[in-house]
Amino acid sequence: MTQPTIVIPRGFRASAVKAGIKPSGGMDLAVLVSDRPCAAAGTFTTNRVCAAPVRWDRALLPTASARAIVVNAGNANAATGAEGEANARRTAEAAASRLGCRGNDVFVASTGIIGHQLPMERLLDGLARALTETSEDESAFHDASRAIMTTDTRPKVVAREQVIGGRAVRLLGLAKGAAMIGPKMATMLAFFLTDAPVAADDLQSMLSEAVEQSFNCISVEGHMSTNDTVLLLANGAAGGEPLAGTALQEFSALVQSSCAALARMIPEDGEGSTHTITIDVEGCHDREQARAIARAVADSALVKTAIHGADPNWGRIVSAAGYAGVPFEEAELSLWLNGVALYQAGAPVPFDAQAVSAHLKAERETHIRLVLTHGDASIRFWTCDLTAEYVHLNADYTT
Amino acid sequence: MTQPTIVIPRGFRASAVKAGIKPSGGMDLAVLVSDRPCAAAGTFTTNRVCAAPVRWDRALLPTASARAIVVNAGNANAATGAEGEANARRTAEAAASRLGCRGNDVFVASTGIIGHQLPMERLLDGLARALTETSEDESAFHDASRAIMTTDTRPKVVAREQVIGGRAVRLLGLAKGAAMIGPKMATMLAFFLTDAPVAADDLQSMLSEAVEQSFNCISVEGHMSTNDTVLLLANGAAGGEPLAGTALQEFSALVQSSCAALARMIPEDGEGSTHTITIDVEGCHDREQARAIARAVADSALVKTAIHGADPNWGRIVSAAGYAGVPFEEAELSLWLNGVALYQAGAPVPFDAQAVSAHLKAERETHIRLVLTHGDASIRFWTCDLTAEYVHLNADYTT
Repeated sequence: MTQPTIVIPRGFRASAVKAGIKPSGGMDLAVLVSDRPCAAAGTFTTNRVCAAPVRWDRALLPTASARAIVVNAGNANAATGAEGEANARRTAEAAASRLGCRGNDVFVASTGIIGHQLPMERLLDGLARALTETSEDESAFHDASRAIMTTDTRPKVVAREQVIGGRAVRLLGLAKGAAMIGPKMATMLAFFLTDAPVAADDLQSMLSEAVEQSFNCISVEGHMSTNDTVLLLANGAAGGEPLAGTALQEFSALVQSSCAALARMIPEDGEGSTHTITIDVEGCHDREQARAIARAVADSALVKTAIHGADPNWGRIVSAAGYAGVPFEEAELSLWLNGVALYQAGAPVPFDAQAVSAHLKAERETHIRLVLTHGDASIRFWTCDLTAEYVHLNADYTT
Repeated sequence: MTQPTIVIPRGFRASAVKAGIKPSGGMDLAVLVSDRPCAAAGTFTTNRVCAAPVRWDRALLPTASARAIVVNAGNANAATGAEGEANARRTAEAAASRLGCRGNDVFVASTGIIGHQLPMERLLDGLARALTETSEDESAFHDASRAIMTTDTRPKVVAREQVIGGRAVRLLGLAKGAAMIGPKMATMLAFFLTDAPVAADDLQSMLSEAVEQSFNCISVEGHMSTNDTVLLLANGAAGGEPLAGTALQEFSALVQSSCAALARMIPEDGEGSTHTITIDVEGCHDREQARAIARAVADSALVKTAIHGADPNWGRIVSAAGYAGVPFEEAELSLWLNGVALYQAGAPVPFDAQAVSAHLKAERETHIRLVLTHGDASIRFWTCDLTAEYVHLNADYTT
């Protein structure tokens, strides 16, 4: 596989090793390290059953002294009780002792099967190796992007460089996720590294807002994970004073577009999927109502299977909108599918079903547009279809 | 197919015809008629996009003069605008003119594809034939139970006779539904007929309560229908004064157990399903919290596919409970699968995974028990698994 050229933010290093956590024997432990202390921001799953590393990371914020993220795949360290909590702490502290920082300066993240204890001996051995092999080369970050994968078919990376406030600022994002994707407040594993100088509280507010419009706008099957984590580390190695004013806004826009680009890659790689579905909900009273409608449509098995079958069975779309918990009258709702009007002001519109079906068959990209008459709020949401292959993949994951 | 013997409530007649609404050409129009005026109760979908017959029926309640229910399958008359509303009214009024009652004494119900106008000429012609052929024979009710089916593989009937307040009271229920099942407040099509004398307001309160514990406790894929309708007609033909006191309570219990029996048949016939999953959620603060947890577990594609694959991947179950919107700590949650403890007070329990998997493989009946430590409220919920067959069935429904 040829790898796209990516620009690495200054002052960051990475590595990935085979620690023996994934049954496949592949790379399964990645570290992302900053040479200097970072301001950090994070958003996490709101699941009441949340992974030990999520609890650990949450407790570290806010911080301006973060140094590393340790990520393992193959085991979620979720629903693992007190032993799981201790293992998250041991992982952070083992990394810290080698990096010469405090355990509280190390974030940890896990993904994989729920309810099994981490194989700590193998993990700590792998971690020691990983920390001696860190590199600022592109290939080390590519390796890290693959080590965090579980059922993903491809790594998910976004890399940007932009001149902001007179200096070239770099932002790199890595993500994983192809199922158990139904985030509310945060999602999956995604890690952003930047050399921009940003104050920790600015960093958190811009990340939270970006996540609301990116990782909180995707789903695969709507099952909220125990491990969803988005972290953003800013080490300031690009130089200069912390960004402020227009420069801060420009950087915030960069974070937002990078989050959106990376988030979208997840339903694009949704397990077994054959269509990527972009759902625009417009004309709403507020963004949360738009999101609720988009999510109901995105998570409907009947909508997903209709798209998979290239079936313009649009009643499934408007009926999903109808149970989203948003009050509206049918006469206030209109629907377009791939640009074709199907339902206008609460009544069906004659359309060429064969042409719409042929378009669905031919193209992976699918566009659903639902428009209400309530206001100016809108949202863009991404999901994928539901296929027999998804069922096959998920009927046989642990055994 | 041999048909079970059923006892028909006195004073009711039924018939079913081929009106030419289903593409298959099968029976698709049923009428249920009472010789005398009935007290009626109903519960309906809470979907904002709801079918014209739902709007019509809702407006008729409360009533003590109901005479008939006209049901068609093959077309939902939903998302059909003003024309759909007019067609529901025309159907009721056509039946009324033949029965010698008011249009407002006739309930209508539809199920099938959303967004298409009813073929009114064929429908009214079929209705005229159906009304001339009504019979109090068992076979007429069996025909009606089949005419209302869409993707159901079998009719769903419950018939009871019980001595209450010194007289033999009969209750007959018919239902249909195998997908687009995710009711909140009511569901699908289900019709109950009784010859018990019951005051209309007693009837409504007992039906509402029974539906809360039956039709509102099932799902197939969680997509709330536009057409969910449960109706209960009581014509008093068993004789005597309206039931009161203990007799009323006994009849209410009969309604409750009949609703539960009929509701359960729907996920048992869930499209493509290979497992019927009973979910008991116990130890909750209130019933709505128990229901929220049960519904989140029932509607998780990951839980459903794990059960389908006989995979005791219980992390999917507790993580679904975790995003139900009910506040709890992990240490307050325990889980049993088919009687085997998997997760106790927030920590995993060693178990024989092969034995649990073998049980799942061998039996259609599956039991999930989630216990919190918050109180005495509980709920029993029924769903089915998610299979590749479900995807095949739903990727190709209209085209």
